[in-house]
Amino acid sequence: MRIALDAMGGDHGPAPNVGGARLALAADPGLTVVLVGDRSQLDPLLAADPLPADRAEVVHAPAVVEMKEKPAEALRRKPDASIFRAWQLMAEGQVDALVSAGNTGAVVAGGLKTRRFLKHIHRPGIATVMPTAKGRCVIMDVGANVFPKPRHLLEYGVMGAAFARHVLGIANPTLGLMNVGEEEGKGHELVQKTYELFRSGPVKERFLGNIEGRDIHRGAVDVVVTDGFTGNVVLKLCEGVLEFVMGVVGQEVIAPLPNDRDVAAQALKAALGKYHYSAFGGAPLLGVEGVCIICHGSSKDRAIANALGVAARNVQVGLNEKIVAELEALPDGEE
Amino acid sequence: MRIALDAMGGDHGPAPNVGGARLALAADPGLTVVLVGDRSQLDPLLAADPLPADRAEVVHAPAVVEMKEKPAEALRRKPDASIFRAWQLMAEGQVDALVSAGNTGAVVAGGLKTRRFLKHIHRPGIATVMPTAKGRCVIMDVGANVFPKPRHLLEYGVMGAAFARHVLGIANPTLGLMNVGEEEGKGHELVQKTYELFRSGPVKERFLGNIEGRDIHRGAVDVVVTDGFTGNVVLKLCEGVLEFVMGVVGQEVIAPLPNDRDVAAQALKAALGKYHYSAFGGAPLLGVEGVCIICHGSSKDRAIANALGVAARNVQVGLNEKIVAELEALPDGEE
Repeated sequence: MRIALDAMGGDHGPAPNVGGARLALAADPGLTVVLVGDRSQLDPLLAADPLPADRAEVVHAPAVVEMKEKPAEALRRKPDASIFRAWQLMAEGQVDALVSAGNTGAVVAGGLKTRRFLKHIHRPGIATVMPTAKGRCVIMDVGANVFPKPRHLLEYGVMGAAFARHVLGIANPTLGLMNVGEEEGKGHELVQKTYELFRSGPVKERFLGNIEGRDIHRGAVDVVVTDGFTGNVVLKLCEGVLEFVMGVVGQEVIAPLPNDRDVAAQALKAALGKYHYSAFGGAPLLGVEGVCIICHGSSKDRAIANALGVAARNVQVGLNEKIVAELEALPDGEE
Repeated sequence: MRIALDAMGGDHGPAPNVGGARLALAADPGLTVVLVGDRSQLDPLLAADPLPADRAEVVHAPAVVEMKEKPAEALRRKPDASIFRAWQLMAEGQVDALVSAGNTGAVVAGGLKTRRFLKHIHRPGIATVMPTAKGRCVIMDVGANVFPKPRHLLEYGVMGAAFARHVLGIANPTLGLMNVGEEEGKGHELVQKTYELFRSGPVKERFLGNIEGRDIHRGAVDVVVTDGFTGNVVLKLCEGVLEFVMGVVGQEVIAPLPNDRDVAAQALKAALGKYHYSAFGGAPLLGVEGVCIICHGSSKDRAIANALGVAARNVQVGLNEKIVAELEALPDGEE
């Protein structure tokens, strides 16, 4: 298994990427990591604390897409940036997967540019995993496609369900459409039309109907389908509310405790770690040939290592083949 | 001050409405409540525990819009439902405000049907108040208008800022546009066009640019503007995440405490109450002549009483006049 790592991606530069590669290589003896990035920055890090020589390679990419850079502009001005070079390695079949904590828009743009989508798929989308009262759920799309068509959401339903089943191990995943109310006919045209596609399409057996915001964390369904605008707001909002509530609990519940303050503070920190994004190992961009895992920009070593693990698992279970098989039944139709 | 209360609205029927009216009448000697609803259900409740006769009236409305009913259908089939009768009282000038915990879509539909919008306003929207790390923020729209035009969002910005200033007492409220990234040019066409309107319109001095989901609870801005689809998801998601995290904290942090379990559980309950929707007294439908406050369907006495208090305050501060004055400067333009 060979995985390309965008070694320059993320808020903290190459160090957590090299550190994450080290953890992942130690955990999985079958793994080779291709660090894609600027040699002049990578070499000193590797000299100071070498990786296993036979399972770590460096592919030089002189440029970096900055976190605030516009993806389309970056694609035009910096074709030799690390993330685009990583996509190229995957398109050439030199790696099985790629992982990046860089500019999400640029990761997606790189994937769109290859145009190597899975058969029957019109637009890739980002899936992410969230904790719920009953376990975990998949939410898709969280930002690749901010103004999708109904057909795209149908594809996201199929891909999200395949991910839930084959990667998360949920035997028979149920599916819900994010909406403003449960009843049929709620919401705007996009969700109304998507509802009809779900009712008749390849996921009709799994489809439980519309769900509302509060249903996600109650664990009402295993897969939540939504447009990339709403999904991105949901993802980041959850992060904000989690931080906020944990802060409130720390100040208003734990700080005043007479005896157990320290043990409670420890337990709170553990809970925050357990339910934080970094515990869920990166978000796959589904629908492309190969495997692409997108990490949070603030990822540290552990989060990068988790993402490399998820990438390896997605390759091993043959997720793409399962997705294509599920879509074979569907008429190609209009986009 | 006379306020119509949709006495049949909500998940729990007339009892919490009558109870809420009782609390509000006791708290505000200048208040008269007009209970709009089915006399055969209201009379026994009032006989058992009478309200002050000179400040509580009943207006009979035989029908009720059920919580799951489609608003447009209800409007056609049940013109004599309590919520529509309440709107009629306001349109006739018999009350200054109305409060309902009923079917939100029906409350909005009743308001749209009167067509009595404030000058310069094309579409009313629902504002709600949320706790943040720095205090409170207003988010608008949370569900009246799921597919708005840029001009509607501009109006929501003006109305949300007026609400923050004159009702919440935030001297110089700042404003942000909900988006998938901070940079200009992010997101779909609606937010891109709205961004331009905000940059040049009557709120340009307040406008801090795009914000992301995680910024809401960090208190990055005082007013968050968004379409009613996203806003509704945000509102309900916050409820779900709050419940989820409080549940996790109860089980994983507080339950195992050796000494302080009870005092910590009490403090957690208090925090949940403090940051729960019911503490924020209902959501105003802004942009209509008069004052309309929408409550959560699960509202109990205290939440209804809070909403009656917010309604009274909105009338007293002359919120509508302030909104119209701020929009006078703006060319009417295209919708």
